[in-house]
Amino acid sequence: LPTKLPKVGTTIFTVMSQLAIEHDAVNLGQGFPDFNVPERLIEALDRAMREGKNQYAPMTGIPALRQAIADKTQRCYGHRPDPDSEITVASGASEAIFDAVAAVVRAGEEVIVLDPCYDSYEPAIDLAGGRAVHVPLDPATFAPDWNLIRAAITPKTRLLMINSPHNPSGAMFTADDIAQLTALLRDTGIWLLSDEVYEHIVFDGRQHESVLRYPELRERAFVVSSFGKTYHCTGWKVGYCIAPPALSLELRKVHQYNTFCTFAPAQWAFAEMIQAEPEHYEQLGAFYQGKRDRFREQLLTTRLKPLPVPGGYFQLVDYSAVSDLDDAAFCRWLTVEKGVAAIPLSPFYETPPAGQRLARLCFAKNEATLDKAIERLQKL
Amino acid sequence: LPTKLPKVGTTIFTVMSQLAIEHDAVNLGQGFPDFNVPERLIEALDRAMREGKNQYAPMTGIPALRQAIADKTQRCYGHRPDPDSEITVASGASEAIFDAVAAVVRAGEEVIVLDPCYDSYEPAIDLAGGRAVHVPLDPATFAPDWNLIRAAITPKTRLLMINSPHNPSGAMFTADDIAQLTALLRDTGIWLLSDEVYEHIVFDGRQHESVLRYPELRERAFVVSSFGKTYHCTGWKVGYCIAPPALSLELRKVHQYNTFCTFAPAQWAFAEMIQAEPEHYEQLGAFYQGKRDRFREQLLTTRLKPLPVPGGYFQLVDYSAVSDLDDAAFCRWLTVEKGVAAIPLSPFYETPPAGQRLARLCFAKNEATLDKAIERLQKL
Ligand SMILES: CSCCC(=O)C(=O)O
Ligand SMILES: CSCCC(=O)C(=O)O
Repeated sequence: LPTKLPKVGTTIFTVMSQLAIEHDAVNLGQGFPDFNVPERLIEALDRAMREGKNQYAPMTGIPALRQAIADKTQRCYGHRPDPDSEITVASGASEAIFDAVAAVVRAGEEVIVLDPCYDSYEPAIDLAGGRAVHVPLDPATFAPDWNLIRAAITPKTRLLMINSPHNPSGAMFTADDIAQLTALLRDTGIWLLSDEVYEHIVFDGRQHESVLRYPELRERAFVVSSFGKTYHCTGWKVGYCIAPPALSLELRKVHQYNTFCTFAPAQWAFAEMIQAEPEHYEQLGAFYQGKRDRFREQLLTTRLKPLPVPGGYFQLVDYSAVSDLDDAAFCRWLTVEKGVAAIPLSPFYETPPAGQRLARLCFAKNEATLDKAIERLQKL
Repeated sequence: LPTKLPKVGTTIFTVMSQLAIEHDAVNLGQGFPDFNVPERLIEALDRAMREGKNQYAPMTGIPALRQAIADKTQRCYGHRPDPDSEITVASGASEAIFDAVAAVVRAGEEVIVLDPCYDSYEPAIDLAGGRAVHVPLDPATFAPDWNLIRAAITPKTRLLMINSPHNPSGAMFTADDIAQLTALLRDTGIWLLSDEVYEHIVFDGRQHESVLRYPELRERAFVVSSFGKTYHCTGWKVGYCIAPPALSLELRKVHQYNTFCTFAPAQWAFAEMIQAEPEHYEQLGAFYQGKRDRFREQLLTTRLKPLPVPGGYFQLVDYSAVSDLDDAAFCRWLTVEKGVAAIPLSPFYETPPAGQRLARLCFAKNEATLDKAIERLQKL
């Protein structure tokens, strides 16, 4: 059977999680917390089920959740998207990204992605018949080079995909990046897809430069987020897309015939949670900053060199003092021989930088888990 | 913004549900039960959440659920698909159908669909760059005409989509249909997509002719089903696809980058439920047959003429004794003026049969709901 997706194998996150299980490694690979969701969310979901909210939700999401997202966006970014025409709930940020790409990219068109980038972007582009044009971020800082991006634009460019806070590096767009991005897109017909799933996990008083803050950007953007990272429930797969009415309309045409709607009881639970605990968003940064700081301090007792982490819940480490292996081989070795699963960076690239010796560790874990990992990493 | 899906508007199911709410009509339109899911399922889901099963499930579904599906398939159809290589859990049957089409249909290829058919099929085909070739079912019996189907095959035909028990008519494939289908596909390179979401809602001792019973068919088929219809939880959006390894591999490449995985706690709940109450499958037919029989008897006291219902939870009625309106106008009128929401058949067709005067009523409702609808329908 000739495949439509020749480049696609099993995603690295699955590969490393399986390897971690097989070798009883501490799994700091695939990004998910090992602590539970807030009790209130479980109770609210349970109540929704018992109240019989188990049939199809509206295709765009239940009104209460779309309103809660609108209110929350207003509180966080000073802009209230219209719940009816601009907010669409989807079965995870992944589905929202897939739908957005399918909605606007046509055969032969180009989509600019910034490497390293999340591995779902390119297959979504390929399935739409488009072509991913990979522009590297700065290999040291993971900052975008706006001249390189500008040079990649052709008459066929339909979409630019960005991600801040960035997976895998944690790098964040600055106000200057936003200014450059705005100038770049002005007077073009290029849409923007902004993957902001780590929007509330930001550190050291930094401001998340959500595209939703900026009128000129948001009028051409799909802004995608998710509750999985914010509420410690990556397996619930509830995400959403905020986009102007014309873009939302096109995205919904795909969503309507892809998943149609999203697990209904969780929608009621998130609607309640967002309104009941608005302070959760501010506290989340501090919660994860505590983990980051503690983990980084511990890493200094190992031969791995931690890179800066402005946001997100991943810590990149330079392992060149420990090993000459390429990153895929190093992460396998670390998992199998040393009992700590990590994610290599090369699968996030079309062309990984030669000689890059970086691995990604997830610190969204209990202290005991991180302590156990550190104990093992100290033996490197 | 030029659309990629010029034919797509808001699905008729949403349109009629909204109209029903606005006019306080009894909603027999969109297909969903108005009674709750089994208590055991709620309890199992609740337990899964409290046990912390809230992070990413494996991309293909949790092993316990895939095994339960394999066991259940063995019990029902005498064939046990391999849970690892042949069963994939998806976010509803809709997503599984979307993924299957995206996985095997390429630009310029043709997919045969049998009208009337579910309205998600064609947009999925269009997004893959394919073209839906519509072949009518018999307008009186909704049986397939195998000569017509054969005549529609061209060298570009990649996929045939079938659906039994059939939405909207309730018609079911017979053993003879299976024989003809088998002969038709033999020695072709055409894949089969069999939408079997109503597999357990069959009446009068009929056997559901699942494609899974037939080795020669199942080796070229995506067989899609869902728990939404079987466990009264259309809003949970957990479905699955059974397909041979090579087809499952391609479907998974799409699924992996579309939704990646499905709401994890529900997977644990279904795994438990399927194993704990295998008799549920046999009881479901009797449960719905009781509703069907009662509803049909009541309909005889109205001027609507009920058509036969071999399976599924929809009752077609011929309204020609009541009105000369076309079906879309009739269903609007019935909803707005008479307080009963129904679904017209024309949206299920590329070319609706001239003069067809049929509407679809969902009888997956409590007796009180159906009684109230009948009271109103008696006034026609
Ligand atoms: C869908 S598994 C990948 C989870 C994730 O976002 C990551 O580890 O980067
Ligand atoms: C996704 S809404 C449509 C539900 C359904 O299957 C039907 O009413 O036919």
